[in-house]
Amino acid sequence: MENEKIRERLKLLKSEMKANGIDCYMMPTSDFHNSEYVDRYFKVREYFSNFTGSNGTLVVREEETGLWTDGRYFIQAENELSGTGITLFRMLEEGVPTIEEYLKKEMKSGETLGFDGRVVDCKSGKKMEKALKEKGVTVCYEKDLADRIWADRPELPHHKVMMLPEEICGQTCAEKLSHVREKMKEKGAEYFLLSKLDDLMWLLNIRGKDVNCNPVALSYGFITMKEMYFFIQREAVTEKLKEYASKYHIILKDYFEITEFLKGFSYDGKVLFDSGNLNFSLYKTIKENAECVDEKNPTELLKAVKNPVELQNMRKVFLTDNVVVTKFIYWLKQNVGKIPLNEYTAAMKLDGMRREAEGFLDLSFETISGYKENAAMMHYEATEDNHKEIAPEGMLLVDSGGQYMGGTTDITRTIVLGKISEEEKKHFSAVAAGMIRLTNAKFLYGCTGRNLDILARGPMWEMNIDYKCGTGHGVGYILNVHEGPQGIRWKYADGQKEAVLEEGMNVTDEPGVYREGSHGIRTENVLLVRKGEKNADGQFMYFETLTFVPIDREALDKKYLTQTDIKYLNEYHEEVYRRLSPHLAKEEAEWLREVTLPL
Amino acid sequence: MENEKIRERLKLLKSEMKANGIDCYMMPTSDFHNSEYVDRYFKVREYFSNFTGSNGTLVVREEETGLWTDGRYFIQAENELSGTGITLFRMLEEGVPTIEEYLKKEMKSGETLGFDGRVVDCKSGKKMEKALKEKGVTVCYEKDLADRIWADRPELPHHKVMMLPEEICGQTCAEKLSHVREKMKEKGAEYFLLSKLDDLMWLLNIRGKDVNCNPVALSYGFITMKEMYFFIQREAVTEKLKEYASKYHIILKDYFEITEFLKGFSYDGKVLFDSGNLNFSLYKTIKENAECVDEKNPTELLKAVKNPVELQNMRKVFLTDNVVVTKFIYWLKQNVGKIPLNEYTAAMKLDGMRREAEGFLDLSFETISGYKENAAMMHYEATEDNHKEIAPEGMLLVDSGGQYMGGTTDITRTIVLGKISEEEKKHFSAVAAGMIRLTNAKFLYGCTGRNLDILARGPMWEMNIDYKCGTGHGVGYILNVHEGPQGIRWKYADGQKEAVLEEGMNVTDEPGVYREGSHGIRTENVLLVRKGEKNADGQFMYFETLTFVPIDREALDKKYLTQTDIKYLNEYHEEVYRRLSPHLAKEEAEWLREVTLPL
Repeated sequence: MENEKIRERLKLLKSEMKANGIDCYMMPTSDFHNSEYVDRYFKVREYFSNFTGSNGTLVVREEETGLWTDGRYFIQAENELSGTGITLFRMLEEGVPTIEEYLKKEMKSGETLGFDGRVVDCKSGKKMEKALKEKGVTVCYEKDLADRIWADRPELPHHKVMMLPEEICGQTCAEKLSHVREKMKEKGAEYFLLSKLDDLMWLLNIRGKDVNCNPVALSYGFITMKEMYFFIQREAVTEKLKEYASKYHIILKDYFEITEFLKGFSYDGKVLFDSGNLNFSLYKTIKENAECVDEKNPTELLKAVKNPVELQNMRKVFLTDNVVVTKFIYWLKQNVGKIPLNEYTAAMKLDGMRREAEGFLDLSFETISGYKENAAMMHYEATEDNHKEIAPEGMLLVDSGGQYMGGTTDITRTIVLGKISEEEKKHFSAVAAGMIRLTNAKFLYGCTGRNLDILARGPMWEMNIDYKCGTGHGVGYILNVHEGPQGIRWKYADGQKEAVLEEGMNVTDEPGVYREGSHGIRTENVLLVRKGEKNADGQFMYFETLTFVPIDREALDKKYLTQTDIKYLNEYHEEVYRRLSPHLAKEEAEWLREVTLPL
Repeated sequence: MENEKIRERLKLLKSEMKANGIDCYMMPTSDFHNSEYVDRYFKVREYFSNFTGSNGTLVVREEETGLWTDGRYFIQAENELSGTGITLFRMLEEGVPTIEEYLKKEMKSGETLGFDGRVVDCKSGKKMEKALKEKGVTVCYEKDLADRIWADRPELPHHKVMMLPEEICGQTCAEKLSHVREKMKEKGAEYFLLSKLDDLMWLLNIRGKDVNCNPVALSYGFITMKEMYFFIQREAVTEKLKEYASKYHIILKDYFEITEFLKGFSYDGKVLFDSGNLNFSLYKTIKENAECVDEKNPTELLKAVKNPVELQNMRKVFLTDNVVVTKFIYWLKQNVGKIPLNEYTAAMKLDGMRREAEGFLDLSFETISGYKENAAMMHYEATEDNHKEIAPEGMLLVDSGGQYMGGTTDITRTIVLGKISEEEKKHFSAVAAGMIRLTNAKFLYGCTGRNLDILARGPMWEMNIDYKCGTGHGVGYILNVHEGPQGIRWKYADGQKEAVLEEGMNVTDEPGVYREGSHGIRTENVLLVRKGEKNADGQFMYFETLTFVPIDREALDKKYLTQTDIKYLNEYHEEVYRRLSPHLAKEEAEWLREVTLPL
């Protein structure tokens, strides 16, 4: 059956392209800030293709329209593209060209490639421009053609912002600005163009709600040595924000005026920005109008090192969250096989419990709930329409977290619901061992995640198994659940910068085993980087654990653990009981006592 | 008392400087190839200063003569410089200028700094030139003023070279040249200037004796797509070399003609070289005369990956060497307290035993023999005049190795001679644990030494102790005992390239504990990188051990080891007994049986 709706939309787009002298129009999946999650407003590719996956780029030409997506979505894309006339390009499959290769092959000298440069990251835009220049193809990045056709397009989100109290932040916006200005001076810049939303929120001690699960407001910042211009949608501005702005010499500007502002500003020195976090349009604008210092945003590292007030609040918030997750595990174990349960309803139950918790603001990401073999798919998302029923056997992997007034959490537990195989026990124990060994790392100051990754990954490598992702990432403070620059990874892409683990940073510790068609196991705690002994050999560092939730003893087998692993596990579980039991109902506490007994 | 000899030499040098328009003359400690060990011919700095340490630079000006050396040599330098009028500059001490800072401060615009550019590495030369250019100081690098004064200077070493048989090399020089030429093409170079001696020896399958413990001949190579020019001293050339050269299109040239050759050559393409391994004179010459590709020598990686024939020979040679060291340990334990023994005579005994071994060519470095607190000094060298007596108590650290026809060895054992403290046992056990854990590493292809270092270093970090050096280095094949590019280190200098551990590479595994004034412990095995299982998760790698010599059970305490450590140690010791006992005398084998019993 033909998909007339999509065909009609593409027809309109093509005539708009013709009217604008554009021979090929590209629509990726991003917002203006390259956020991890994308609002409905930005789902242009979906509007013109019917493909709803989280990763995809649509390329429209008179002769052919193509959609590029990755292996997770091949089957889904085939279904959703059916009848649209759109060709599916299976990324990374042999013989399938990349978009760049495709455009270089198909576009002719003198033609024009169009895209909305605000939703293309700077690096991709530059690469595309360079590759096509050789072919004599021009790039037009100023036009959002989709907007002219998408009549009932949702509005750009613009929730009212909130100012965080000082007892939550530990540092005023003035103090932060002063640190940032010092860093600007060090880099020889008079100005700093900041487009990274979580950095902006951190700097100003404000929060928004414009990106799903990320408590950020769509905005830009332009910082001078005396003032700060803050570009934000009019609708998000409150009276309180106005007062706050005047107190801290923040000049409020309309979000959409950023380009004109950058064009019209009288520069008297260099502008610092991080092209890794700027969209292509802004990059072109600033490059054409000012002398530039293209370096990491100084806010990134300042934000990553949590201050003592933040650390104290995080400890409290993690306790709250630990109690929620532990209660959920109890509830799940009590009810499995007794009431109808599926991956989705289980996730909803947990989300509901979290919403009741003190200080709760939002989820920090959509809860991942994968039963049995579904847990082996790293990007699996159970939905109301698509999920697996849960029975009293096998394991349920639940990866979840919350935004609280006082911190952001992220935790994974794999929960035994009934009979599991010996292999599952072996893998579960190895994952626990890896998690524990990284937790127990003692290391000299100067180490990065690359030095430590093997501690967590080793037990899996020992079995000739790998997990195809990093071991850990930084977590924001009432901000994005994925935060740089620190991380625990064994391999870095060329040119990717490694960050030394600094006191006050946090990092997740989440090794796993994923066996396709069988089972998936992950155990994730959040760790804080702390200073240990300092002596003639240097400054030693260690981790403090923030996550205290039982690790399922039913899947732990001592024969796969070392004495040190077992000793740690027993002490950890004792601490779990000590911390959580006062916050539990009697029957929950009794259950917790049992599941935290020494192995 | 005045040191008239040195004063007279400096006086002559200064007048020579004046005659050549040189205001300041610098003499570092190096040969023309930046070799690790320096021949007598190159001891110019010692000739003019009386300072004999292994690291030092002499800077002579009319007004002042200064010697720069590091902390290991402050006391020795003070003594040796006494009466010479030379100022000692204690490197890295607060307020002490670096040579560069000193010259920038003291030299005036229009003046000339002189040095023999052949004994200054390219990087230092460039840095110096750049720094002084700003001050208007000229650099003259073509003149070896010292040579004109040092009448009885030893001759430049020029031992006859030897060709290695094919069954030793596994690859002919023609095959190696063909690989190198492919790499040259990949890098867009028509020519390759090679100054690194071990790379040259590897490429040509020849060996020399011109550098202490390094079986190399002073030489240069210039490789074109069809021929190879080999610059070597006339005295080193044999009839066999001439035949060999003509067989492989190698054109023999005099060692001293390299500069004129590079100036006169008609280039028809770019010249590849590695400025990290070129002296400043050659660098300037090639830069002025040809288009250049400054990259790593392609020979370095090719040489580091040993071929199957080399691996087979290494296994045999290590067995031979393992037997020698084990017999030495037996002898030492039998004789300590019974015959007069000191660090130096113990080393001499071991060296003598090695010399008797089949296929022995030379030591691979001067044997390190450190008793008790002397073992804590990493660069300690016992000499005939300066050593400690050995008694039946404490421990002796012996780090030694040999060049054999079939491989180069490097091994450290710390040997218990009598009563030791509980702390020594603890440290010894931790060192053994570290050595074992790196040995047992399983890892994915793509790992570098940085990913693995913590396995060996972890047990020390656990105790808030670090050793201030890498954990391991590559070992040459009948070549330099220290060979790149691979290594086991946790930290790299900025810009230092990490090498992926490739199958066929070898690496030492030598963690340690060094407690100033008390004791030093190191246990060192050599490991081979091997391919393990390959599956959907990737190519797994592991280490094969080449070193089988008992690790002293008297200093091992199970309470500081894990079950896995103990299991490995017991299996290792069983294997030591199985491999070595057939090669031992009856009483040695009986002793070995005992010291290799399970813990």
